[in-house]
Amino acid sequence: MEKRKKVEVCFSPAIYSAFHNNDAIVVIVDILRATSAIITAFMNGAEKIIPVATLEEARAYKEIGYMVAAERDGIVRDFADFGNSPFNFTTDRVRGKEIVYSTTNGTNSIMMASNSFRVIIGAYLNLNSLAQYIINKNHDLLILCAGWKTKFNLEDTLFAGALAEIVIMSNNFFTICDSTLASIDLWNIARKDLMSYINKVAQRHRLKKNKLDDVIEYCHTLDQTNIIPALKDNYLVKLTELESNSKI
Amino acid sequence: MEKRKKVEVCFSPAIYSAFHNNDAIVVIVDILRATSAIITAFMNGAEKIIPVATLEEARAYKEIGYMVAAERDGIVRDFADFGNSPFNFTTDRVRGKEIVYSTTNGTNSIMMASNSFRVIIGAYLNLNSLAQYIINKNHDLLILCAGWKTKFNLEDTLFAGALAEIVIMSNNFFTICDSTLASIDLWNIARKDLMSYINKVAQRHRLKKNKLDDVIEYCHTLDQTNIIPALKDNYLVKLTELESNSKI
Repeated sequence: MEKRKKVEVCFSPAIYSAFHNNDAIVVIVDILRATSAIITAFMNGAEKIIPVATLEEARAYKEIGYMVAAERDGIVRDFADFGNSPFNFTTDRVRGKEIVYSTTNGTNSIMMASNSFRVIIGAYLNLNSLAQYIINKNHDLLILCAGWKTKFNLEDTLFAGALAEIVIMSNNFFTICDSTLASIDLWNIARKDLMSYINKVAQRHRLKKNKLDDVIEYCHTLDQTNIIPALKDNYLVKLTELESNSKI
Repeated sequence: MEKRKKVEVCFSPAIYSAFHNNDAIVVIVDILRATSAIITAFMNGAEKIIPVATLEEARAYKEIGYMVAAERDGIVRDFADFGNSPFNFTTDRVRGKEIVYSTTNGTNSIMMASNSFRVIIGAYLNLNSLAQYIINKNHDLLILCAGWKTKFNLEDTLFAGALAEIVIMSNNFFTICDSTLASIDLWNIARKDLMSYINKVAQRHRLKKNKLDDVIEYCHTLDQTNIIPALKDNYLVKLTELESNSKI
């Protein structure tokens, strides 16, 4: 039997350097709302998503003709075509398109993990496809929660717990990471009534304040797709385009 | 009624800047073992503890005649009088003494919070005295977990949940902080059988490997003292010496 691979959860990009692991598959998680939105864009036919770190870069892309998603603190920027709501990325707007994407927490996380074996995008929408891909690979798993402005957040942690639990139950993975153990315990509290638990998280209050909380239930819906966005060079494509022999 | 004060939990000194709050009482937590050891030293008659960040500073104090506690990764340094075990700080060794203290995670946390309203040292050993002091004050509460080399750890988080829950139940405090909500939920899982829950935390494995796990049960024993060590200038004394009109 091959040596079991380890699972770790990093609660904030600000402490990523303590977890950095070139051998790992890194799953980027920003449930409310960047990774849920990116997956939705691919579900609706987007060809490519280019994550950028700054609003300046996003604006520069806009000026040369790209469609651009850009928000800060949940608010769409005036030059942008999209904000961060998954509901913006409808088929008629995104099919066949290359989209530039800049968000508060998500983009930096994607780019800082770019030296890993593989960087993929996770959310409830693709949870079990994600887990199956990871289980089939012989690599460590690092779940990188985008958090909120370097802080821990609950909604990403719950998802990390859901994913870690499925992967560890395959018996090819183990964990001695306190963040992973905590995530699994919190997931097992929350899963009994996920929408009611999510009512208390800080990000729900932030979204509600800006009337952006209509997406919360959708962002907590399991297994709407088997698409896994993955980082290729400096942009995201479907994983199946990256790994032509992939079994998923 | 006075405005309610907020409770926040910071899981790692590496993200402290996102929580920094000059108005707050900051409780430093390093259950295994620094803050449990510091409280024990005061319980056994120590007069003053001088936290230092580097081993070089610790060694310099030793050379001018101070008693010095210094460890890294749980191992006592050869020039030091004490390591990090609370059991080292016996009455015959510490009564009336000034002790210099350098540890892996704890010291840096103490010093980085030094601009706050008050920096105090927390552990299960003084949990309810700590909570009572905080409830009697009209200040925000920030619980700063020392963590492990910038990572989240469970044992500090459980204590943060225990303290946050008592304080919030007084009705003079509130929280909208996801780390605080998570800490309270984890504490309510663990409290049912704390020693069994603690069996799974990474730090227990580290201590066990170095045969230093004999202190774990002691470090999870509630309310052995009403002493609260507090930062005065750049050293720790009993809070009662700092606040002569204190009601505690």
